[in-house]
Amino acid sequence: MTDNVLSMIYAHSQGAGGLDKAKLAECIQACFECAQTCTACAVACLSEDMAAELTACIRANLDCVDACAATGKFLSRHRSGKDPVARTVVEACRAASTSCSAECVQHASMHGRCATCAEACRRCEQACTDLLTALV
Amino acid sequence: MTDNVLSMIYAHSQGAGGLDKAKLAECIQACFECAQTCTACAVACLSEDMAAELTACIRANLDCVDACAATGKFLSRHRSGKDPVARTVVEACRAASTSCSAECVQHASMHGRCATCAEACRRCEQACTDLLTALV
Amino acid sequence: MTDNVLSMIYAHSQGAGGLDKAKLAECIQACFECAQTCTACAVACLSEDMAAELTACIRANLDCVDACAATGKFLSRHRSGKDPVARTVVEACRAASTSCSAECVQHASMHGRCATCAEACRRCEQACTDLLTALV
Amino acid sequence: MTDNVLSMIYAHSQGAGGLDKAKLAECIQACFECAQTCTACAVACLSEDMAAELTACIRANLDCVDACAATGKFLSRHRSGKDPVARTVVEACRAASTSCSAECVQHASMHGRCATCAEACRRCEQACTDLLTALV
Repeated sequence: MTDNVLSMIYAHSQGAGGLDKAKLAECIQACFECAQTCTACAVACLSEDMAAELTACIRANLDCVDACAATGKFLSRHRSGKDPVARTVVEACRAASTSCSAECVQHASMHGRCATCAEACRRCEQACTDLLTALV
Repeated sequence: MTDNVLSMIYAHSQGAGGLDKAKLAECIQACFECAQTCTACAVACLSEDMAAELTACIRANLDCVDACAATGKFLSRHRSGKDPVARTVVEACRAASTSCSAECVQHASMHGRCATCAEACRRCEQACTDLLTALV
Repeated sequence: MTDNVLSMIYAHSQGAGGLDKAKLAECIQACFECAQTCTACAVACLSEDMAAELTACIRANLDCVDACAATGKFLSRHRSGKDPVARTVVEACRAASTSCSAECVQHASMHGRCATCAEACRRCEQACTDLLTALV
Repeated sequence: MTDNVLSMIYAHSQGAGGLDKAKLAECIQACFECAQTCTACAVACLSEDMAAELTACIRANLDCVDACAATGKFLSRHRSGKDPVARTVVEACRAASTSCSAECVQHASMHGRCATCAEACRRCEQACTDLLTALV
């Protein structure tokens, strides 16, 4: 997916408005990946006999899906390092990823998918942090 | 829609975790309404002969749709006044609504739909502000 | 919300391409309402001690949220009775609503929110059926 | 992204209900990629001086984003080859991808991003077709 994300950024006639294109592409990619992984994690947790013990994890997953999917689309339209809305959107995405990672990591030793999901959330959290340093 | 939003909040066995239920319902309703109105505004602007002059408005609409739709769903799952993620999500939604309202109001005298959309954005902005005072 | 939906349809310079405007507005409204209600129903079911018995209901809710939210936005851009994509989108939304209503109604006597949700799904299903008769 | 999609499918304790896992993963990946690419294509088209001539392309992009994002999430929860809702959801996604590809390909010689987007849409269309043969 990364190749496509980058080629769409370069293809844009107005570039990325001074934003670091690699950081932008990385964050877009991480958002979509995290949205997909959290969606799958939620339903896999839901299918466990111990679903009742995974409630907080499932809710964090669902919150993270919405934040990441919206941010991935938002950033795919993004062209400027100075947009005040972008900062708040990326901060919300980072907060949701941080929270979901903290939930999933608790079940990582028992459920391999939660380990995978915790990593996807951490990558997204890191990509948001990196992009925030590039936004004014 | 408001009746349904409220009845779902009251039906929840855990209540709304001390959150003001009316403010929560108002914000959920305002988010969904704003997402719908901005979607319609974007495509109506796009269909104008002068679409090229409405580019900034259309982009603000699309950003607002993603922020409001995600926040409306996020808040529909929300139960606590102390969730740190909620604060960032509602702030992002408010920023997107403020920005879109500022764009739409510029075309409000020429396009009735932009006036309607600017009002929906302002209601959403206000509902977010009101809810933020209820979040720690 | 309905007033806004209708006024955005009437404000559009190209009208609704021969589509029955009231049916279109009704379906848009029903989609957003169903997306909101199913989001709330999923998380309320998830919070029950008997969450494990509600797994099928929660999954149907999550599927219905995605179908209804996408269809509500799709139809908010819609202007023609002849778009072949519209037919498939509305059929998918109807199928998801039918399926979710069938799940929720099983728990309606025990959980008031499932009764509310089953009704929202049925309204959406009916609105889709009505709109499909207006699409070629 | 594909590695993650597949590992989440394999990690699920109930498998994919007899569905061809590679086809399912391919379709999920293609849906998310298409949603991202179409989002970027829409805003890039919107930024052109000739935006007014690209209106149909932008609308097809926006429709395709909603269909693909919803389908990518839906299929990330999917476990069975016999779900009647799945068939309608994948058919809607295929119709939206076919329609958007047909629009984008018309501008492919002038705008590199439309060529990239037309290809992403075609991959998604093909992945939907392949998955539909695996659904009852």
